[in-house]
Amino acid sequence: MNISLFASPLPQAVRVNEVVTRDGFQSEDRFVPTTDKVAMIDRLSNLGLHKIEVTSFVSPKAIPNLSDAAEVMQQITRNPAVTYVALIPNEKGAARAVESQVDEVNLVMSLSEDHNLSNMRMTCAESLAQFERIVQQLSGTGIRINGSLATSFGCPFAGLQPQQKALDMVARYLDSGIETITIADTTGMAGPKQVFELCHDLRQRYPSVDFTLHLHNTRGMGLANVMAGLAAGIDQYDASLGGLGGCPYAPGATGNICTEDLVQMIETLAVDTHVDLNGLVELSRTLPALVGHETPGQVSKAGLCDETRPLSANLQALKEAKLSPHPI
Amino acid sequence: MNISLFASPLPQAVRVNEVVTRDGFQSEDRFVPTTDKVAMIDRLSNLGLHKIEVTSFVSPKAIPNLSDAAEVMQQITRNPAVTYVALIPNEKGAARAVESQVDEVNLVMSLSEDHNLSNMRMTCAESLAQFERIVQQLSGTGIRINGSLATSFGCPFAGLQPQQKALDMVARYLDSGIETITIADTTGMAGPKQVFELCHDLRQRYPSVDFTLHLHNTRGMGLANVMAGLAAGIDQYDASLGGLGGCPYAPGATGNICTEDLVQMIETLAVDTHVDLNGLVELSRTLPALVGHETPGQVSKAGLCDETRPLSANLQALKEAKLSPHPI
Repeated sequence: MNISLFASPLPQAVRVNEVVTRDGFQSEDRFVPTTDKVAMIDRLSNLGLHKIEVTSFVSPKAIPNLSDAAEVMQQITRNPAVTYVALIPNEKGAARAVESQVDEVNLVMSLSEDHNLSNMRMTCAESLAQFERIVQQLSGTGIRINGSLATSFGCPFAGLQPQQKALDMVARYLDSGIETITIADTTGMAGPKQVFELCHDLRQRYPSVDFTLHLHNTRGMGLANVMAGLAAGIDQYDASLGGLGGCPYAPGATGNICTEDLVQMIETLAVDTHVDLNGLVELSRTLPALVGHETPGQVSKAGLCDETRPLSANLQALKEAKLSPHPI
Repeated sequence: MNISLFASPLPQAVRVNEVVTRDGFQSEDRFVPTTDKVAMIDRLSNLGLHKIEVTSFVSPKAIPNLSDAAEVMQQITRNPAVTYVALIPNEKGAARAVESQVDEVNLVMSLSEDHNLSNMRMTCAESLAQFERIVQQLSGTGIRINGSLATSFGCPFAGLQPQQKALDMVARYLDSGIETITIADTTGMAGPKQVFELCHDLRQRYPSVDFTLHLHNTRGMGLANVMAGLAAGIDQYDASLGGLGGCPYAPGATGNICTEDLVQMIETLAVDTHVDLNGLVELSRTLPALVGHETPGQVSKAGLCDETRPLSANLQALKEAKLSPHPI
């Protein structure tokens, strides 16, 4: 086969970042006990993931399920091969992240003014000014700074976002001292063409910047959008174990793309993830007991692509009777 | 943008075939009343779909939910622009299809011997011999004959299937008088690379044969596999409204790809489907009441990609206060 699905060669390997204990647990009604969070992160730490977004240093009133952020950070056993990340909404969160000695902080702003107001109660200008103060605050701590651009493709209030606006905002992020950037389809509004076009332009303009795609499966296009990201040369993806992390404004709709479904698909493309897929599936199957409901992920229910089961005894007998060269 | 996601140009338009009343309803526990089936097909008939697989002329004992096949075929109002299809498992089914004056029959065999034994209680050789008899039986009736090749990519008993085996079987189908062919990933085991490679080879070998892809979302790769099919030039897809049609061996796992999710994604690629997406979503939202449970489709819950909602009054006031050039 000389012809390929994609116009460009795929990345040789893909890095997978796990967000279940932050993006997944934050929207759960039931509080996940600190020991269970720590146990989950410790198991995730040995599965070959690139980053683990452990928690968020946010107000416990805003997100009660992450009120134990410092305890979780303190109690986990760190694997030096993994980058442990905390999301921070403001300078107070940054100070807590320093105390907890996270490897990396994740700053978030929305490309859409309306969504930023809704999510952060700040204008985009206020968010950017805060980013610059946090960059100063963290200077010399050795903590890496990632910036997430939420609603990069579409906003539930303001609709689909023009590509130029996202390109301009990425330039502002880099100017403010943010080192690596996550492009987020926060409410799953993008299609593969839009994902490809923005990612392709970003890769062309900033060949040495490390970009991550954070995709949601809200409209079923999550893994199709991963295909588009891969085609554009993006080699780092956020995902949530079991696909945990609902879509708050659309009951029943799913949120984050599912880590084990993502890894399964990338493996079928013969691209390395270095992730232990069986380990992920096993761990994902413990989630329903923790959160009290089924998860949207598929591979944990259906099994891996190459998993088989035996024919029943009846069918085996039928097969032998019909296919034996000398039927008795 | 000069560069494209795909190596080859996409089809200009895609034909969408609806299978919900056959593949969807057949696995439901609750009997869907005949009048509800007829009403659903009549609404589907006006939404721009290419084919509707209405029912299956199968033993009522085997599939009680389709025991009203003849009544449904008789009571629907046919739109001349739509091809009305019935699945038939044998010559008796073919005779019933003739009586009901279907436009097309769909013959099914599995590429995997084990799956064919499990599904049809026949060897592949027995199925092929039967196909030839049915082709004779239908000769001169004007009924078109489509052949579906189930488990074309993988079998839950025998595992992933070699591409050459599928290519060989397509040749046998065409030799037996079957006119158009559906390549089915019956239990959702294929990844995009495998889908692309088989479809690409089929398109090269048989440029004038009309192929359909029948994909399942069992492992979350359904729409990613559509991307692969499009890249290979396949312009016809089966799908089920709401994603109805479970996976009998994997509780909780989804079955068919969801029609409205498929159409939404194809529209984001700027490829025509000629399908009324709003009409599909509206109809899909009537399914939970008919079948007594939520459906796996996403767009019916989340809304279309370009659907927006207003900011709350509080947020609107905050926005005005923060962004007004002359705050009061």
